[in-house]
Amino acid sequence: MKNTFGNAVTLTLFGESHGEEIGCVLDGLSPGMEVDLKTVENALAKRRPAGGISTGRREPDAFRIVSGVYDGKTTGTPLCILIPNVAQRSADYQQQTAYRPGHADFTADMKYHGFQDPRGGGHFSGRLTAPLVAAGAVLRSALEKKGIVIGTHIASIHGVADAPFSGTEEEMKRLKDAAFPVLSHEAGEKMQKEILAFKERGDSVGGTLETVVTGMPAGVGEPWFDSLESILSHALFSIPAVKGVEFGAGFGFATLCGSEANDAFINENGSIRTRTNHNGGINGGITNGMPLVFRTVIKPTPTVSVLQDTVDGKTGEAIRLSFGGRHDPCIVHRACIVQESVTALVLFDALSARFGTDFFGEK
Amino acid sequence: MKNTFGNAVTLTLFGESHGEEIGCVLDGLSPGMEVDLKTVENALAKRRPAGGISTGRREPDAFRIVSGVYDGKTTGTPLCILIPNVAQRSADYQQQTAYRPGHADFTADMKYHGFQDPRGGGHFSGRLTAPLVAAGAVLRSALEKKGIVIGTHIASIHGVADAPFSGTEEEMKRLKDAAFPVLSHEAGEKMQKEILAFKERGDSVGGTLETVVTGMPAGVGEPWFDSLESILSHALFSIPAVKGVEFGAGFGFATLCGSEANDAFINENGSIRTRTNHNGGINGGITNGMPLVFRTVIKPTPTVSVLQDTVDGKTGEAIRLSFGGRHDPCIVHRACIVQESVTALVLFDALSARFGTDFFGEK
Amino acid sequence: MKNTFGNAVTLTLFGESHGEEIGCVLDGLSPGMEVDLKTVENALAKRRPAGGISTGRREPDAFRIVSGVYDGKTTGTPLCILIPNVAQRSADYQQQTAYRPGHADFTADMKYHGFQDPRGGGHFSGRLTAPLVAAGAVLRSALEKKGIVIGTHIASIHGVADAPFSGTEEEMKRLKDAAFPVLSHEAGEKMQKEILAFKERGDSVGGTLETVVTGMPAGVGEPWFDSLESILSHALFSIPAVKGVEFGAGFGFATLCGSEANDAFINENGSIRTRTNHNGGINGGITNGMPLVFRTVIKPTPTVSVLQDTVDGKTGEAIRLSFGGRHDPCIVHRACIVQESVTALVLFDALSARFGTDFFGEK
Amino acid sequence: MKNTFGNAVTLTLFGESHGEEIGCVLDGLSPGMEVDLKTVENALAKRRPAGGISTGRREPDAFRIVSGVYDGKTTGTPLCILIPNVAQRSADYQQQTAYRPGHADFTADMKYHGFQDPRGGGHFSGRLTAPLVAAGAVLRSALEKKGIVIGTHIASIHGVADAPFSGTEEEMKRLKDAAFPVLSHEAGEKMQKEILAFKERGDSVGGTLETVVTGMPAGVGEPWFDSLESILSHALFSIPAVKGVEFGAGFGFATLCGSEANDAFINENGSIRTRTNHNGGINGGITNGMPLVFRTVIKPTPTVSVLQDTVDGKTGEAIRLSFGGRHDPCIVHRACIVQESVTALVLFDALSARFGTDFFGEK
Repeated sequence: MKNTFGNAVTLTLFGESHGEEIGCVLDGLSPGMEVDLKTVENALAKRRPAGGISTGRREPDAFRIVSGVYDGKTTGTPLCILIPNVAQRSADYQQQTAYRPGHADFTADMKYHGFQDPRGGGHFSGRLTAPLVAAGAVLRSALEKKGIVIGTHIASIHGVADAPFSGTEEEMKRLKDAAFPVLSHEAGEKMQKEILAFKERGDSVGGTLETVVTGMPAGVGEPWFDSLESILSHALFSIPAVKGVEFGAGFGFATLCGSEANDAFINENGSIRTRTNHNGGINGGITNGMPLVFRTVIKPTPTVSVLQDTVDGKTGEAIRLSFGGRHDPCIVHRACIVQESVTALVLFDALSARFGTDFFGEK
Repeated sequence: MKNTFGNAVTLTLFGESHGEEIGCVLDGLSPGMEVDLKTVENALAKRRPAGGISTGRREPDAFRIVSGVYDGKTTGTPLCILIPNVAQRSADYQQQTAYRPGHADFTADMKYHGFQDPRGGGHFSGRLTAPLVAAGAVLRSALEKKGIVIGTHIASIHGVADAPFSGTEEEMKRLKDAAFPVLSHEAGEKMQKEILAFKERGDSVGGTLETVVTGMPAGVGEPWFDSLESILSHALFSIPAVKGVEFGAGFGFATLCGSEANDAFINENGSIRTRTNHNGGINGGITNGMPLVFRTVIKPTPTVSVLQDTVDGKTGEAIRLSFGGRHDPCIVHRACIVQESVTALVLFDALSARFGTDFFGEK
Repeated sequence: MKNTFGNAVTLTLFGESHGEEIGCVLDGLSPGMEVDLKTVENALAKRRPAGGISTGRREPDAFRIVSGVYDGKTTGTPLCILIPNVAQRSADYQQQTAYRPGHADFTADMKYHGFQDPRGGGHFSGRLTAPLVAAGAVLRSALEKKGIVIGTHIASIHGVADAPFSGTEEEMKRLKDAAFPVLSHEAGEKMQKEILAFKERGDSVGGTLETVVTGMPAGVGEPWFDSLESILSHALFSIPAVKGVEFGAGFGFATLCGSEANDAFINENGSIRTRTNHNGGINGGITNGMPLVFRTVIKPTPTVSVLQDTVDGKTGEAIRLSFGGRHDPCIVHRACIVQESVTALVLFDALSARFGTDFFGEK
Repeated sequence: MKNTFGNAVTLTLFGESHGEEIGCVLDGLSPGMEVDLKTVENALAKRRPAGGISTGRREPDAFRIVSGVYDGKTTGTPLCILIPNVAQRSADYQQQTAYRPGHADFTADMKYHGFQDPRGGGHFSGRLTAPLVAAGAVLRSALEKKGIVIGTHIASIHGVADAPFSGTEEEMKRLKDAAFPVLSHEAGEKMQKEILAFKERGDSVGGTLETVVTGMPAGVGEPWFDSLESILSHALFSIPAVKGVEFGAGFGFATLCGSEANDAFINENGSIRTRTNHNGGINGGITNGMPLVFRTVIKPTPTVSVLQDTVDGKTGEAIRLSFGGRHDPCIVHRACIVQESVTALVLFDALSARFGTDFFGEK
């Protein structure tokens, strides 16, 4: 399905970094969901580069919802979000025929035979996460009305770790409003210093993101191919730069024994919960009512200005190059809202399949 | 799509641990692919419990291919593989109403309202990986004819690590024939000792698996939602007990800087390759011609005979229980062939979409 | 998706006429639906050839449901139905290399390059409608519990027309129990005479089927690609020999003017209905609460024993042949239950998507 | 999948009649296909109302392709086509709460609970066929380069029949350039008179369309659920007003016997063809290399200004109304290009699945 994701609810993504417009189509929404443009704007602002730790590119992200909304509410028919591209400075890229290490230049050539739009990464550009974020904002509002809250913090940047995140209401609130979402102010300062240090050297850094989702009802997901882990990881790995996904104790399970790893069930005033949450809220692919917990790793931005060996795609010659342009020394903080957005899409889809197409709307 | 996976080529899985038969339907295969029953048998044998480190359950896995094969070759119409269940000893489970910690008993109740088949884990049972392995054996043979080879070793068990795996022809051959696939004989001995030690205590252990795929052509996969990482992780997380997936340097990217993480392109006698392979053979969701490299974490088998706290699903009362029965103290080694099988399915599907429905058959 | 149909609920079909077993996998069913084996048997009996107007082939259709049912109810996991093939007499076909006119012999060769199973039509055989009928029987029982009833009569055979069918309870009951489902006993007699007359000449006849569905709630279906007409026709055209599908007034609309064709809305004791039903219960792709009405045309069975010109697939030579074997002079009456079965699948799927996965089960 | 159609190649449709923009996203195209804007313009012009026999609405259909095309060729990534709405005169509709007979007003209310965009038919409007036609134009150019030509004539309007259409090159050419595509000039004149006669009475008429496709290779399509008839009818029934689809002899099969209906195979200079083409180029769901032939029936436009009985959706009261506004007395001629467009989509998709994603592009 390539650029379409989801089953009961689908998102179709299109556009190129320096094309006329980028956008997405969201289909399968319940009729009667509120669409608050301010919420969408706020979400896009969180994705936007800002301050010294990001690229100098200006991306105003003026978006238009051109279908599927009437009188401020979803109609139930496809919602198309468009974002015009205005900050292109194509000259930065046009003459580039050398394959940038860590980028998709070479693989795009192998797949598209040179017909791909090469400007600014084309369809591979991180810029395409903007429509994902806009769509995610609409979906998150609907999830929140059902008591489902998604929060993400920067768990680490280049080895500098944040404080632990358990998903309390207070933590969720703090992360939502933060431009650089961490729980420990001190850790956040250190991380930003680290980013700036690498920026100065013309280099870049990566890190990890941790998401907690509270309020998911038990019994959502599927065994086997549509396990919630399967579907979430499918969506998470579509975020450029994500190279690993783990749920609950994740890779830590490798050194636990069964009696440590299992989450004991307890009866808390008539509601069945688990004492620990090593399984990250999912057993057998299905939610157990505990918070969903997962982490991703975001690789360092591949565009760096230090000299690198590579090959020229036209001539096949080995060359040594520094790649200039306005680039992010780190995209981990900007990826937070993207991670939350694809998470919202997955959960919204699973809940719509489970409870029907009217679940999220007024009636 | 629940129990169906794939696009151009699909696999549909069905069955319960103690039902009459389990099996799968493979659709979209090229006509004229050889189907060697001996190869399927060998693959099933690798999945089967064996020796002191596995469960005492006997599973003969007599399989039948009841459609889609004629004169030893695929017809191009759906291939159905059936495996009868004969080793059921349902009494072990029948009276069990306590939710086993770490299992899907509780989540199944929430989703299926008590109508699920409770015997032996029902549809959630690891037993359903047998048809996956049988299907995988058919697909791997076809991939190997195209020069694409999949190998997996036990990277670690409860912290005991194997030697590094780079995917040489010799390594691939050794792993293929091994019942306990490791590269270091010594590490393998240690791992098995570790398993037996925990078995004696009535406990269990987990570990990590690492897969390398050689021979994949460059240019296969998609940006965004059907990135090869997305599709592979979707399939890998459908293996019960997998709780993490990482590609190339994986979570190690979190402490690398960009200039370290990037794989420099080189021209090796006219063929473009990368000097390192931190990206695990995938850039922008698309193969770059380098070996695919990924790791999963397999959590410790949840069924342990040490005492555990839990809740009785019928009465809601807290209880403390030891879960008996014949269980695996470790399933990491048995999961090797399963991981290779779902990998084969993903790659076969992606190549069929790319090169058409006749790609793998004779003409 | 080839041999898989449906979205929220899917049916995957497999098998060949003379293979070991044929069958299907039904996925996405609500947990807790009753599965009555006697109902399935009765449905299969209606599809089976019987009396002088059908083939002499005996097809006992002993079916097994090997998964997805526990204690007489659906578990919510995939239900696999198997039907062994026992009446094969492959010698009738084996030496046949001439392309039978009107059959798929030639097109199968073009698609499968000669690797297809040639015995008895292989995967193209009408025999594969048996698993469809078995699955349909399970689904229809669930639909009937929701008040949704599907009835089909033979509208015509070789020009001999039945009495009109409006979908009253009494008509529905009569059609359900009939081996040769017509409303006018006299017309039925005439039709059977017509069939026998052509049988004597070694020839065959076709006809039309008309289905009425009562009890469908308004508001089910989609505009555009998943219009209920789109989805129903998709399923109906997968029945071998169907070459036309029309809804409501169908091709009759071509000679009506708008003021005649429109169905006036009326308020009948608070419930909005239409005075006429030219649109067959569907407006804009969505049910309007009126009975669904549609007709298909079933072409004459292509296997006839009169001499026909054709080409030998091996040698390319023109030949003139009579095709012997035990064949149906008419399959229109046998197609009734098949048409009802795929209709049940479509409606069940649409209702599950609309109202969620628990809609048809007990809770 | 609601507003997305196709498998290897998908089209996602969005928009409302009086919304800001309507459009579609085409995904899965081969890289390197030429995109000629003039061809798209010409196709849109054929769909546009023109002359006295259509609505007076002006629809300039200024379209923009905002992604997926670079340097005049497809990139291989999603192509998004946008068409702004500029001719809205919403006042014509705004106060309308009476359900228009034959329209989707009532069913939309049942499905979308009143949240749908009611202006000008909203998402149900025939206006959404414009993006389908634009997309179809891109696909048809690629098909024509492979020798596959699609032609459609008005087979009849309100009983006035055109001359027979066999798909010769000369016929194809004439139909392509015609604003009112018929083969008999005389029949065309009569049809237009008929339309104008009904227009004067404030009434409307329907008719039938016949499509012939030449140049399709044999061996494309699937048995069962993805039979070419299934997929084509799925797409054809998504065109508003289509209420019947038939292939080859279609409903005429009901009065043929087998020996008449079968198409004898002949060997024409080494190429296997059939002497007649009653099966419309499809056997067993798969192309046989003969021209594809199918017909649809287009019901009379439901909006008429003669008085009609209906119900007010707000009050539930019975009322008698004349529906004014600028409406088409007939849309059969305008539907020609739409029918060709969805046909192109189906064939393009089937060929891409069969021959891989590079089939239609340069390499």
